[in-house]
Amino acid sequence: MSMKTGQQYIDGINQAKPCVWLDGKPVKGKISKHTAFRGVMKTQAALYDLQHQEKLKPVMSYESPDTGQPVGMSFLRPKTREDLITRRTMMEIWANVHHGFLGRAPDYMNTAMMSFYSAADVLNEHHPQFAENLKQYYAYCRDHDITLSHVFIQPQISRYGDTLTFLGEEAVTTRILEKTSEGIIVSGAFLLATQGVTADELLVYPSPAPGTNENSPYAFMFAVPNNLKGISFICRQSLVLGDSSFNFPLSSRYEEMDTLVVFDHVLVPWDRVFICGDQIMVFRMFKDSHFHTHVNHQIICKNIAKTEFVLGTIQYLIEVLEIEGHLHVLEKAAEVMLTLESLKSFLIASEVNASLDQWGTMVPDPAPLTAASNLFPKVFPRMLEIVQLLGVSGIIMIPSENDYSSPVSADLSKYLRGLGSAAKENTALFRLAWELSASSFGGREALYERFFFGNTFTVTNRFYQSYGYKEICLQKVKNFLNQRKKNTDET
Amino acid sequence: MSMKTGQQYIDGINQAKPCVWLDGKPVKGKISKHTAFRGVMKTQAALYDLQHQEKLKPVMSYESPDTGQPVGMSFLRPKTREDLITRRTMMEIWANVHHGFLGRAPDYMNTAMMSFYSAADVLNEHHPQFAENLKQYYAYCRDHDITLSHVFIQPQISRYGDTLTFLGEEAVTTRILEKTSEGIIVSGAFLLATQGVTADELLVYPSPAPGTNENSPYAFMFAVPNNLKGISFICRQSLVLGDSSFNFPLSSRYEEMDTLVVFDHVLVPWDRVFICGDQIMVFRMFKDSHFHTHVNHQIICKNIAKTEFVLGTIQYLIEVLEIEGHLHVLEKAAEVMLTLESLKSFLIASEVNASLDQWGTMVPDPAPLTAASNLFPKVFPRMLEIVQLLGVSGIIMIPSENDYSSPVSADLSKYLRGLGSAAKENTALFRLAWELSASSFGGREALYERFFFGNTFTVTNRFYQSYGYKEICLQKVKNFLNQRKKNTDET
Amino acid sequence: MSMKTGQQYIDGINQAKPCVWLDGKPVKGKISKHTAFRGVMKTQAALYDLQHQEKLKPVMSYESPDTGQPVGMSFLRPKTREDLITRRTMMEIWANVHHGFLGRAPDYMNTAMMSFYSAADVLNEHHPQFAENLKQYYAYCRDHDITLSHVFIQPQISRYGDTLTFLGEEAVTTRILEKTSEGIIVSGAFLLATQGVTADELLVYPSPAPGTNENSPYAFMFAVPNNLKGISFICRQSLVLGDSSFNFPLSSRYEEMDTLVVFDHVLVPWDRVFICGDQIMVFRMFKDSHFHTHVNHQIICKNIAKTEFVLGTIQYLIEVLEIEGHLHVLEKAAEVMLTLESLKSFLIASEVNASLDQWGTMVPDPAPLTAASNLFPKVFPRMLEIVQLLGVSGIIMIPSENDYSSPVSADLSKYLRGLGSAAKENTALFRLAWELSASSFGGREALYERFFFGNTFTVTNRFYQSYGYKEICLQKVKNFLNQRKKNTDET
Amino acid sequence: MSMKTGQQYIDGINQAKPCVWLDGKPVKGKISKHTAFRGVMKTQAALYDLQHQEKLKPVMSYESPDTGQPVGMSFLRPKTREDLITRRTMMEIWANVHHGFLGRAPDYMNTAMMSFYSAADVLNEHHPQFAENLKQYYAYCRDHDITLSHVFIQPQISRYGDTLTFLGEEAVTTRILEKTSEGIIVSGAFLLATQGVTADELLVYPSPAPGTNENSPYAFMFAVPNNLKGISFICRQSLVLGDSSFNFPLSSRYEEMDTLVVFDHVLVPWDRVFICGDQIMVFRMFKDSHFHTHVNHQIICKNIAKTEFVLGTIQYLIEVLEIEGHLHVLEKAAEVMLTLESLKSFLIASEVNASLDQWGTMVPDPAPLTAASNLFPKVFPRMLEIVQLLGVSGIIMIPSENDYSSPVSADLSKYLRGLGSAAKENTALFRLAWELSASSFGGREALYERFFFGNTFTVTNRFYQSYGYKEICLQKVKNFLNQRKKNTDET
Repeated sequence: MSMKTGQQYIDGINQAKPCVWLDGKPVKGKISKHTAFRGVMKTQAALYDLQHQEKLKPVMSYESPDTGQPVGMSFLRPKTREDLITRRTMMEIWANVHHGFLGRAPDYMNTAMMSFYSAADVLNEHHPQFAENLKQYYAYCRDHDITLSHVFIQPQISRYGDTLTFLGEEAVTTRILEKTSEGIIVSGAFLLATQGVTADELLVYPSPAPGTNENSPYAFMFAVPNNLKGISFICRQSLVLGDSSFNFPLSSRYEEMDTLVVFDHVLVPWDRVFICGDQIMVFRMFKDSHFHTHVNHQIICKNIAKTEFVLGTIQYLIEVLEIEGHLHVLEKAAEVMLTLESLKSFLIASEVNASLDQWGTMVPDPAPLTAASNLFPKVFPRMLEIVQLLGVSGIIMIPSENDYSSPVSADLSKYLRGLGSAAKENTALFRLAWELSASSFGGREALYERFFFGNTFTVTNRFYQSYGYKEICLQKVKNFLNQRKKNTDET
Repeated sequence: MSMKTGQQYIDGINQAKPCVWLDGKPVKGKISKHTAFRGVMKTQAALYDLQHQEKLKPVMSYESPDTGQPVGMSFLRPKTREDLITRRTMMEIWANVHHGFLGRAPDYMNTAMMSFYSAADVLNEHHPQFAENLKQYYAYCRDHDITLSHVFIQPQISRYGDTLTFLGEEAVTTRILEKTSEGIIVSGAFLLATQGVTADELLVYPSPAPGTNENSPYAFMFAVPNNLKGISFICRQSLVLGDSSFNFPLSSRYEEMDTLVVFDHVLVPWDRVFICGDQIMVFRMFKDSHFHTHVNHQIICKNIAKTEFVLGTIQYLIEVLEIEGHLHVLEKAAEVMLTLESLKSFLIASEVNASLDQWGTMVPDPAPLTAASNLFPKVFPRMLEIVQLLGVSGIIMIPSENDYSSPVSADLSKYLRGLGSAAKENTALFRLAWELSASSFGGREALYERFFFGNTFTVTNRFYQSYGYKEICLQKVKNFLNQRKKNTDET
Repeated sequence: MSMKTGQQYIDGINQAKPCVWLDGKPVKGKISKHTAFRGVMKTQAALYDLQHQEKLKPVMSYESPDTGQPVGMSFLRPKTREDLITRRTMMEIWANVHHGFLGRAPDYMNTAMMSFYSAADVLNEHHPQFAENLKQYYAYCRDHDITLSHVFIQPQISRYGDTLTFLGEEAVTTRILEKTSEGIIVSGAFLLATQGVTADELLVYPSPAPGTNENSPYAFMFAVPNNLKGISFICRQSLVLGDSSFNFPLSSRYEEMDTLVVFDHVLVPWDRVFICGDQIMVFRMFKDSHFHTHVNHQIICKNIAKTEFVLGTIQYLIEVLEIEGHLHVLEKAAEVMLTLESLKSFLIASEVNASLDQWGTMVPDPAPLTAASNLFPKVFPRMLEIVQLLGVSGIIMIPSENDYSSPVSADLSKYLRGLGSAAKENTALFRLAWELSASSFGGREALYERFFFGNTFTVTNRFYQSYGYKEICLQKVKNFLNQRKKNTDET
Repeated sequence: MSMKTGQQYIDGINQAKPCVWLDGKPVKGKISKHTAFRGVMKTQAALYDLQHQEKLKPVMSYESPDTGQPVGMSFLRPKTREDLITRRTMMEIWANVHHGFLGRAPDYMNTAMMSFYSAADVLNEHHPQFAENLKQYYAYCRDHDITLSHVFIQPQISRYGDTLTFLGEEAVTTRILEKTSEGIIVSGAFLLATQGVTADELLVYPSPAPGTNENSPYAFMFAVPNNLKGISFICRQSLVLGDSSFNFPLSSRYEEMDTLVVFDHVLVPWDRVFICGDQIMVFRMFKDSHFHTHVNHQIICKNIAKTEFVLGTIQYLIEVLEIEGHLHVLEKAAEVMLTLESLKSFLIASEVNASLDQWGTMVPDPAPLTAASNLFPKVFPRMLEIVQLLGVSGIIMIPSENDYSSPVSADLSKYLRGLGSAAKENTALFRLAWELSASSFGGREALYERFFFGNTFTVTNRFYQSYGYKEICLQKVKNFLNQRKKNTDET
């Protein structure tokens, strides 16, 4: 009933034995021993272990109001600006361990749970029991340090929520088939459950569809352990090619498997149901909880760490290749510096202008965080491109760790060294640059960041519509044009 | 011996009668009556008048330590974070009057003078009298509310500072010809004295040339009234086409004339000399005074106001043209919103992370401000392009104010109206969009912002070299690659 | 009854005395003497005079089949690839006189008339008399060397062609009010009649609206002299600031006035009516005549000349500023070279793959020409930006011709010269760079080219839908994926 | 003594048994059986087999002047425009087999050999024997259908050709150590011998270094079989993950291994030496042979095929995802269409304006081909980005061929299908889109095309310096500015 250790995390996942398929075969045995999962689980275990370092405890944990035990700081509901800063400090520590490559580091979902919990009373209006369920579930997650993933994107064939009648039999939208005394029975599928296999539980909420139906089979929110009967995970191709962190410095540590999660007549017990049928409530849950703003506060910490890592890689390439004297090199590095400084400033501004919401939660200013979430999908792929543009042929000619303990080692050492760096050091750097910018791992990274918050329309529209300041600017120009008569008087 | 009024400003300029040439003819009579200058002078006068509004006084002024009189807030040397915020609040008020179109609003040079004054003691090392001169001059400017301009860019033929020997007679670099008991005699020219004609005085300092010469004729810093014997201003073409603020909403108010300033054996009295011959001191004056950082704090306020004005114009176009439903329109507006939110966050971050320098002055964090000065030259021309892209044919088909009081008014009113807006209102908006994005005024604006802080190399190099955080990022990646052995252990 | 001379062109315009309003005042007296029009008319007159140069006659003219007199080559209906090449050679000669700055050089509308004439028989299906009218009108234009402009864009308030019922009284779409024995009576307005005032006649055809109405008041095509009763031209602001070709090298020669043309109960005689009421025929006229392809063949010649002019300006800046050693400078010049070489190759490819249409007209391959019309609006504004980026402060500091004959001439000559160029030569170049890239003339140029062929959607959609080759590519990939079984066999 | 079959090609490679290292282990056994090589060899074999298809023979082959046997058309030295077109037709046929993914399809090096052979007489000036050697070697390659690769890039540590003295012992530039009666002894290394392992022979010529040394150990050109004593190939990581063309449609067929080639005291017999010591001759060989132009003629055929393949993939995604209705989708497809049409037009223009060189060889116009080589490195990575942007989550969620024959097949078929396409068909397309745009194969493709012709500076400089037309444009603008006096006369 307290914070987990890394070993506890690994044991938990290994014992759950969810139904997982990879390349046409079921995953058997300990998940933590499987090539596709062991790297990321080790990284995640390291995060949990950090919580127990004595000197970090004050920032990594706080006392559970229910158990009195120390629990993870990312579960803390912030009530003051200082709370926000403490939360952020904790999130920075974890982000600097995984350098921003874990999209599903535990603080992400912990923050999401916190935001829903903070606004749980919105459910009181219609269904007090659901409000109670949500609060209980949050406390359970916090006090047991539950590792969560979530799903909300449905397969494309299911997208046409408003044309279900037309689609008839073909419709495969995830839905409540039946309500029983024990719970709701759900069938359907969700795309891209990232780390679904390496989490304990799954929070499930389809993106809100338009409408005000109070009894829609498509509107719900619930949480389930990922080994519940009827749930199966179908993995995409694994991008882990080996355990060598020399050969595969990123994928051997950070490859987060994405899965198609299939629900086949899954019985979700009532105490795990938070919304059932009420379309408006799905909307309001997101809006009133400031979900996007709270998770954005976590994500920007991750993205700062990631940008720092890319900038460090670029600086290392500049150092090894001795190309600091070229304007076009400086321009490319400066692009990344500009992004980094933007993100850091957005973070500061969001905290400086934070304010209390109706529930008494301290919410960061959404404007700079939404700006950040608009910026990052555009600049991240460009950062990877810059790594390619600076690394050039070094990123193509990548020998392996084994080469350096073989008879060709002498040739490599002679021909691949730099003026100030050994060949093996260069190869380690270039393999990192390769994984980051030109490998399947890097490709998935680019896609992940491009579409993290939805497609272009969704992201742009969210930013545009939510940006209240644009009305003030409009008024300034209207005033300016109306004042013209005064100005045309004589001097 | 206190803050100026607008009328005092106008009278001062009119009485000075500097030597000014425009289109081959000397400018005679009151400068404030001349088409090329009257608009901008009226705007500037309005700024000075604002200082005297009773309710604004607390933020617009402070008490002079020498005279006890209220003096302009932008002269205040900040010693606390609150001082920075008060200074910024004052600068925002002025920026919202000229909407960022005045590059030489008085607070710009007031801030520059403040920064040099704050570090005046650096001159004590070699020439205590120069330190004293600078302090006295600052106090004079502050207590008399002197309107300043400055010059530092030399004509291109003069650039080759280090090849002067080779150029021989051809060299035209501005230089000290002679030192006399009364002062120094200077000849040469500077490009682009913006508002040189509509300011009282000129601060003169050539960009520091490389070298450590202690007796260079090319290294100096001084200030002179702009009607001093031997100084003449040659204007570029005026971009003012008329006084009608309907026809020319921007140029009729904000056109800041740029001039070539020629010094022909000008005697600069010793008490106006701050540096004389010492090349290293020119460098140190800039560096130790945090000149770039302090003026950047003023400039970012101006650029926020300017971005707000462009965003307002864009929103007005969207409203009148009813094009809010198009993704590509939202994307373009969102680009400008992203810039605005970036600048606002940079400003906040620079203040949050401000720190005291060796002289006890509170200096904003340079990193976000340098990032801003790297960003703005790239995005500003793009903003103007967006105005073009949204305004389309409306920006071409621009009738005039006279048309609306002529027999064709009925036709215009019929054919140029919008569904929700009158034709004349539309034309006013489109003429604004035209001046902003497709007129000679807009063209000069684009050039001004592109090169405000120097060419691409200068700006990029300044950002790259000064960005200390890149070393930290480099170290992170080096540590990451060095830690690989630990990670390859068994799970 | 033959090709015009320049003087005949000027006299014709002066005698027509159309109803023209500029800045609230009617234009009286000779149009060729008016500041706003005299420059472009002189340029146009020079084009007509070129037709009469003895050695150019073989390429500039051919024998009229009706009169046996030499007529302008751009009226020639091409029946062979050689005809296309001769037409192009003639168009290149004119384009090299106006360097691509005349969007309404006479060959543009001559080509348009030729394309409609070539497909006149499409009108035979419904209205043989209209086909005859069109043929007669083409012959009239050809044999009298009529200078034409055209209009088709309606004011925005009128755009909602399909919501006319809703708009009711508010609708201002140009329409046929009545058909009488003499002709049709038309009221309404068109935007942007470029050179409407400096042409003899106006070809009028609203953009085809969707629908198959055979009796629509909004579907028509006709031609009228521009001094017909009821037609008035309302000019936008003139961008001509003076006659000095030193000060204003482009606008003093090439400023083409845009106008709002108002039709107030204009009686169009039946022999000038080509389509009346038939919506489908408007579509077919455009499609079957290959209008876009033929005019694109003229436009690409113009745009090649324009690109050459910009590249020449860039090379001149590089020479004077001695900046050929910088990579970023070469990259910018290379961008323009790439555009130039693309346009030249598109032109060649369009002729190599030309083919006869159903009427026996040799039509250039539309694919490369449509590609060109997709490329140019994007790259032209960028070319102007490059001129700004290379010209830097020289484009701001622009003295005038008068300055060079005034007392300040000596100072200018001293301080504005280059190492290898005199100050006045530099100023002439920089004023050209200014007009091109940062003046109101340049702003209108950017807008004109951006939207020449319609907004982004129109241009993109036209290219995408018309590009038949994309189906072939799709099939290649489908075949590739279907053939996978073969490839997985053993080696 | 004639054209090879695919089997002959495979047998030849298998029998040669060059020294190859991969992942620290020597490659033993038949190369055509090795995972890393078998796919590309099968593709290459298919190319050779095509030469023997009866109906293709006229275009695939011509009669050897030496043996009278049919030999590969890409060896043909073109003497007429028709020869160029026949060569191109043949190259298109091969390119449509490998869809542009083979950078080292045999016609590439065949063309290179042809270009050097055509200018072999340049060697006559100093060393007639070398000229003879080159001619003999060309004939040998042609008549035995030798499969070649080439190397010219040296490791970065070796780059500092002009600072060799300084580097002293550290210098590792490839060099002639000794000349013996049998030949020259060479040591050193070259980067990126693409398909070095799967070719018969290697053409070796370091990039020309500046200087006029006639006895430089660093200036040479020779050809060797790749199993010559002392030559070893060190492979980069293989990107082949499996033979399934469903899972890996591209890498299973087209992965061209890049290698570091090490020369350790290799004896090159005199009859294989073409240049020895003469730095100027290395320059002249490239220049006088029009090497870049001839290979560009081959490369543009390859790049057209590649662009068509990407466009087809994009159209397939548009079809399956039913997104043709979105402007931003059309814009992206139109970008690729513009590139395709540009390349096709460049190809046509290069042939239309081809001309005979001093040796009587018909050389395509270099300007459009150099433009193409400047364009492609920029647009190719963007094309891959477009595939990512359109494929979105489908590119992440990629099940495998095995999944479709496992118990989860039913779920996949239900949830991953489109409205008009089966799930397995979708997955096949998305796996193609993934390999193309987001896999290690795609990453290497992006790098390969970005830097095919050198870094930015090299490519830009080559285009800029070689583009003679820029002088003509410069002259046009100078004439324009000089003619101003005429134009200022009265009308």
